[in-house]
Amino acid sequence: MKLTILGCYAATPRTFTNPTSQVLEIKNHLFLIDCGEGTQVQLRKYKIKFSRINHIFISHLHGDHFFGLPGLISTFRLLGRDKELHIYGPKGIKQAITLFLKLGDSWTNYPLIFHELESKESELIYEDEKVTVRTVPLIHRVYTNGFLFQEKEAPRTLNIEAAKAYGIDKSQFNNIKKGVDGVDESGNTIPNKQLTLDPPEPKSYAFCSDTVYNESILPIIKDVTVLYHESTFLESESHLCDKTKHSTSKQAAQIAKKADAKLLVLGHYSTRYKSIELFGEEAKEIFPYVDLADDGKIFDFGSKRILAKLF
Amino acid sequence: MKLTILGCYAATPRTFTNPTSQVLEIKNHLFLIDCGEGTQVQLRKYKIKFSRINHIFISHLHGDHFFGLPGLISTFRLLGRDKELHIYGPKGIKQAITLFLKLGDSWTNYPLIFHELESKESELIYEDEKVTVRTVPLIHRVYTNGFLFQEKEAPRTLNIEAAKAYGIDKSQFNNIKKGVDGVDESGNTIPNKQLTLDPPEPKSYAFCSDTVYNESILPIIKDVTVLYHESTFLESESHLCDKTKHSTSKQAAQIAKKADAKLLVLGHYSTRYKSIELFGEEAKEIFPYVDLADDGKIFDFGSKRILAKLF
Repeated sequence: MKLTILGCYAATPRTFTNPTSQVLEIKNHLFLIDCGEGTQVQLRKYKIKFSRINHIFISHLHGDHFFGLPGLISTFRLLGRDKELHIYGPKGIKQAITLFLKLGDSWTNYPLIFHELESKESELIYEDEKVTVRTVPLIHRVYTNGFLFQEKEAPRTLNIEAAKAYGIDKSQFNNIKKGVDGVDESGNTIPNKQLTLDPPEPKSYAFCSDTVYNESILPIIKDVTVLYHESTFLESESHLCDKTKHSTSKQAAQIAKKADAKLLVLGHYSTRYKSIELFGEEAKEIFPYVDLADDGKIFDFGSKRILAKLF
Repeated sequence: MKLTILGCYAATPRTFTNPTSQVLEIKNHLFLIDCGEGTQVQLRKYKIKFSRINHIFISHLHGDHFFGLPGLISTFRLLGRDKELHIYGPKGIKQAITLFLKLGDSWTNYPLIFHELESKESELIYEDEKVTVRTVPLIHRVYTNGFLFQEKEAPRTLNIEAAKAYGIDKSQFNNIKKGVDGVDESGNTIPNKQLTLDPPEPKSYAFCSDTVYNESILPIIKDVTVLYHESTFLESESHLCDKTKHSTSKQAAQIAKKADAKLLVLGHYSTRYKSIELFGEEAKEIFPYVDLADDGKIFDFGSKRILAKLF
């Protein structure tokens, strides 16, 4: 599981800061999450293959989260795409995108499939053999969803050493992989668990932006491996949260703590602050496992360094 | 008259090339012409004051000419704008922009005034005491206009030296500035022309992008000071012009020559070419006064160097 931050600053794009967009690599998928203006340029900058993106998840229809989408969709056509592209986002997104294409007398050479969201309950919006994606209903100024990406538990793998030690014949290996118990040369049953290895613990990633502090998301994101939670403000601006429906980094940390997240990644910083370091410092007063998103930063949750920190 | 090129490359924005947008400074106006994705970032990069932009001219509704507009309009609000903003562009632009704002439950704190264009004839779309703006109907895959920006002729100015030499009393100076003849101490009439100086020659700028080679624009842009004409292709790709409704640099030079433009500025280069120098070389085979637009390049048509070249 690998996360590339293309942009993680609030409001307007600036020369050195980009609005929200990120790419989650999970079980061979490249999921694009949000698409602020300039996302396609950031994808090029960080050498992410456009052709590997088949699913785009849009949290809400504020400009800093989706104004890059019409351009990206057009560019996919110019690049000769023919594969399906799936867009998950709030109701209205289809009308907006198709109007922009229609005005340019434009079209897509590839199937562009919209999955419009309007439920206020968490729902399963994507599933295949290895991964699921669920919405995380958030509270913001407009209809907004976070997204929870979960790896499914992989099957147990054969413990060759153990099988040999028990004297299990090779002819049984395929069945053992499927969960069947083994039988040794003397006819004794050897429980499957003694002949197989635990699969790696499934990882999960929750993207929660933009949102006011909202404990009702806790049951959905409980025990998540990595929680990305917006932290628009520092404590000194906490009085702005209620009106703007944003959170402070301390509130993000509260959510991470209560959800028993293994790691909290902060982002969606207001550009009023000169440095983002204080976001981390304030959050760590509540919850120790905090990292800071920044444009271009890559979190490789499969790397030993981060794994050691996580597990 | 000063032109800042924010972007001048065709199709998709890339790490180091931007889609079409430029700022024309003329008679104290900052006119923004086209607004491809990323325009607001380019405006910041080249330190152009957002608050000085009151008029935006959009040639056509292809993404590389207007996908930056929703973001720029939103940013104007975030910056606390209260002055009117006028948008001139093809019919449909109002619906598109207002839908994007509506979906984000957003609005503008300032009056946002659309001037939708649908005429196939050249029309006067802006006029004040010092400048006029007219459309230049172009032929492209969708309804497209270029724009002709013209300074009005300034009044003649008093030639103090001449007035003194003729012995004209100061009390007549105001009338002479208004065009009245002078009277010397002996009662002789001195023609106004002998007491005043020619005003500086009014300058004009024509923006013509995107378009196929089209001689019907010649009467509109005749004798223009500076012609920006798209040159998407080199001669080697001229066979693509008819289908895509674009021009080669040689065709741009033909138009400049036939219009008796003083200077041709080329732009809207296809990103297939590694260098833009060849565009200039091919155009100069037809017309000698050619310059190349490039992102971030500033043409100061009031500078002595360029004036010497122009007049």
